[in-house]
Amino acid sequence: MRMELFAIDGLPLIKKGDDLAAMICERAELEDHDSVVIASTIVAKAEGAMVQKSDVVPSQRAINIAKRLGKDPVLVQLVLDRSSDVIIEFPLLLVENLNGHVSINAGIDDSNVDTDYLLELPHDPDASAKGIGKRIADLCGRDVSVIITDTNGRAFKIGQTGVAVGVYHMHPIRNWQGEKDLFGKELEITEEAVADELAGAANLLMGEAAGGIPVVIVRGFEYHTKDDVSVKEMYRPDNEDIIRKGLRCLRQSSD
Amino acid sequence: MRMELFAIDGLPLIKKGDDLAAMICERAELEDHDSVVIASTIVAKAEGAMVQKSDVVPSQRAINIAKRLGKDPVLVQLVLDRSSDVIIEFPLLLVENLNGHVSINAGIDDSNVDTDYLLELPHDPDASAKGIGKRIADLCGRDVSVIITDTNGRAFKIGQTGVAVGVYHMHPIRNWQGEKDLFGKELEITEEAVADELAGAANLLMGEAAGGIPVVIVRGFEYHTKDDVSVKEMYRPDNEDIIRKGLRCLRQSSD
Repeated sequence: MRMELFAIDGLPLIKKGDDLAAMICERAELEDHDSVVIASTIVAKAEGAMVQKSDVVPSQRAINIAKRLGKDPVLVQLVLDRSSDVIIEFPLLLVENLNGHVSINAGIDDSNVDTDYLLELPHDPDASAKGIGKRIADLCGRDVSVIITDTNGRAFKIGQTGVAVGVYHMHPIRNWQGEKDLFGKELEITEEAVADELAGAANLLMGEAAGGIPVVIVRGFEYHTKDDVSVKEMYRPDNEDIIRKGLRCLRQSSD
Repeated sequence: MRMELFAIDGLPLIKKGDDLAAMICERAELEDHDSVVIASTIVAKAEGAMVQKSDVVPSQRAINIAKRLGKDPVLVQLVLDRSSDVIIEFPLLLVENLNGHVSINAGIDDSNVDTDYLLELPHDPDASAKGIGKRIADLCGRDVSVIITDTNGRAFKIGQTGVAVGVYHMHPIRNWQGEKDLFGKELEITEEAVADELAGAANLLMGEAAGGIPVVIVRGFEYHTKDDVSVKEMYRPDNEDIIRKGLRCLRQSSD
């Protein structure tokens, strides 16, 4: 079994209205069941998912949080606007965004964008992935999966990895339930987070800095589907999440 | 930029004393700076890092924890024996093991091993990785990186991914600090958890079930070093870990 990953060369700086599917089809010979992994930054830029800082009026709450964190209150206000739940405010602002994704600062930041703007995550990354996937089918006749990615930190360890924030034609979790181990025993570990593993793999080629390449094709990994899929299949419900419960416990004890 | 991954074919069932480096050299044409990704299960088997269940006498504490979790008290006792810190006991037994790795059940389980035994993680996975890496250099004359992997769950999302538990000739974190973004601004996101991303990528080919392939070669990813390295470079110190603090808060409020 083999898998290969290759980064797409020569993409220009992306701006609002750009047709990412067309740019990808022009630069890669895609095959059916390829996974097209795309950094959320360029999807957001193409969709215009950005906010001009001067349009944001920070609330007192945002000012207070920002002061404690040493962050820009405009950024904090936008994070609050794009969140459905603030899990913890200090020493990091961890939220569930309007799309159900839990991350620091709702995935909003001020890098890789003009200094007057803040770049958001695409507002509906599954829909973005579907739009790009369908357009790729129209333009270059290939049935691909699409994974839109961000980089996030994680519990217990330093560092960040690529993670999936939107999917098309791939379920984010691969279920091995009912399979048996080498000794014929039924497996306990049954859910593999394949979309996140693909996102991390692609991130190894994407790079974080100015040399960054925001589109990586993965070939040879077979988990394609024509099902309707959503990244939300992998988000843990709040009431089943012991770690969120723990962080809420801290908030209550500090209030 | 490209990267390819290929699984090693035809490894037999591994037993204590097996020379994994020799088996790998026999089955793959390795190149300098390849990353050799190896599932911890076969490293543990080759090293004899397993415990016969009948040798374990569960303490009352283990019996109590096991009862609440619906788990085998023998497993729970072994987890306690191999842990330096129990972070939370219910609804899952999350611990820091003697090597500093935080995971459920200290990475010990009863799959893929004879039914009278429990398989542990290798006791010093960095040392295991170094031993295999040096032997590969001796036997097939190639200077490779070695990543030993397990599969772990994560906060806020269901599902598990491949993660690194031991490294050789690769720093687990890639530091992009001082690099600039497309607009010349200095990057904030500076630490990429490359060993975990490689582990996840390899896990896509490894599979979880009886068809599992425990060795994957990654070629084309350039982050090789001759430095002494350790997986512990990426473990977050307890006192900087807000999530551990939250889970301890829960324990205190339930005591």
